[in-house]
Amino acid sequence: MPYVNVRITKEPDTTPEKKAQVIEGITDVLVKVLGKNPNTTFVIIDEVEQENWGVGGVPTPVWRTRQK
Amino acid sequence: MPYVNVRITKEPDTTPEKKAQVIEGITDVLVKVLGKNPNTTFVIIDEVEQENWGVGGVPTPVWRTRQK
Amino acid sequence: MPYVNVRITKEPDTTPEKKAQVIEGITDVLVKVLGKNPNTTFVIIDEVEQENWGVGGVPTPVWRTRQK
Amino acid sequence: MPYVNVRITKEPDTTPEKKAQVIEGITDVLVKVLGKNPNTTFVIIDEVEQENWGVGGVPTPVWRTRQK
Amino acid sequence: MPYVNVRITKEPDTTPEKKAQVIEGITDVLVKVLGKNPNTTFVIIDEVEQENWGVGGVPTPVWRTRQK
Amino acid sequence: MPYVNVRITKEPDTTPEKKAQVIEGITDVLVKVLGKNPNTTFVIIDEVEQENWGVGGVPTPVWRTRQK
Repeated sequence: MPYVNVRITKEPDTTPEKKAQVIEGITDVLVKVLGKNPNTTFVIIDEVEQENWGVGGVPTPVWRTRQK
Repeated sequence: MPYVNVRITKEPDTTPEKKAQVIEGITDVLVKVLGKNPNTTFVIIDEVEQENWGVGGVPTPVWRTRQK
Repeated sequence: MPYVNVRITKEPDTTPEKKAQVIEGITDVLVKVLGKNPNTTFVIIDEVEQENWGVGGVPTPVWRTRQK
Repeated sequence: MPYVNVRITKEPDTTPEKKAQVIEGITDVLVKVLGKNPNTTFVIIDEVEQENWGVGGVPTPVWRTRQK
Repeated sequence: MPYVNVRITKEPDTTPEKKAQVIEGITDVLVKVLGKNPNTTFVIIDEVEQENWGVGGVPTPVWRTRQK
Repeated sequence: MPYVNVRITKEPDTTPEKKAQVIEGITDVLVKVLGKNPNTTFVIIDEVEQENWGVGGVPTPVWRTRQK
C-alpha cells in the first residue's frame, strides 16, 4: 500500500492522458520491483504554479530565462 | 505542536462544515490520546483533483467506473 | 481513499498503543464525517527527532526550556 | 540538492515579489549554512485555502476571529 | 525538475538494489512521459515503520493478521 | 503559522548547531518577508539516507561518483 507523491511545475502540455500514463507507469514500477498491490497503491500528482516553485534561488520563470 | 496533512480527492459534497468537523475531530484525537496542545496543532486538508489521484494504476474517475 | 500524515516530535511516552489509538481515532473521523472507506484510508505517523523540529526559530529542546 | 516545502495560508498580500524573496532567502540559508548547491535546491510554496487550514481545532478564519 | 516522494512500509526484503530500481524506473517514467530532465529529478523513498503505518483503522501488523 | 519541511541527504557534517542555524535562518525569512509569527512557525528537517535519495535516475552515492 504505497503512497507516491509526484510534484511538478504546472505546464500547458501536461494533459490528462499524460498524467494517466505517469500514474500507470509509476504503479507498474512498484508492482514489478517491490511486488506491491496496485489496488492499494496511490499516486498523487501535484501541479505547482511556476511562480511558487523556486530553483537556483529564483522562481521557475526567472530560472528558465537564465538558462537560455 | 503536531502537523497533520489530510489528502483527499476533491468531491462536491466536501462542504466547509464537514472540513471543519474533520479539523475538530482530528485535533481532538491528538489532544486526548497524545496530550497535545490544540493551539499549536495544525490540520491541513488538501483536496486533490480526481484526475491527479491514481489508484490501481489509473486515475480515480476510471477506477470508480471499474468498481461499479 | 484518504492519505493522512501525522508529524509529531519523538517522545518517550508515544507508545505503540497510543499510536494505534491515533490511527483508529483519525480513521474514525474520516469514516464518520466524510464517509470514507477505512480499508483504503492510510494514516502514517512520522516521529521527528526533537532537534530536527524547530519552533520559534529554535529547536524544540531549546524552545521547551524557554517556555518553563 | 535539498527540497524545501513551505506551506502557508493563502493571503491577499502574498505577492509574487514576496514569494520570490522567500525562495531567495531560504535558498541562501541552505547555501550558507549547509554549503548546498543553489542550482539543485528546490523551494516549493503551497498556498492553502484558509478554510482548509485548521489550528486550535477550528479553521483559520474562525481561529482569527477568536484571537481578536 | 520533478520531486517524487515514495512512501512504503519498512520491509526486510527492500534491498538497496530494489530501491535503486525504483529510483531508475520512476525517473524513466517522468523522462519518457513528461520529457523531464533526469538530472534535476529527485526520487526520495521513505521507509516507514510498520507500527506507524495505519490502514483499516489499525497498524499494518494487525491489518496483515486480519487479511490472512 | 507556516509549516516548512526541509529535506536533505544525511551527511556526517550536518551538526545540531548547523540544523539550529537552518531553523533560525528560515524562520527569520518568513518573519521578515511575510510577517509571520515565529512562535507558530514550524521548521522540520528530514535527513534522508543517501541510498534512499535518487537523482539522475540513481541513488545519491552513485550520482556523486559520476560527478567526479
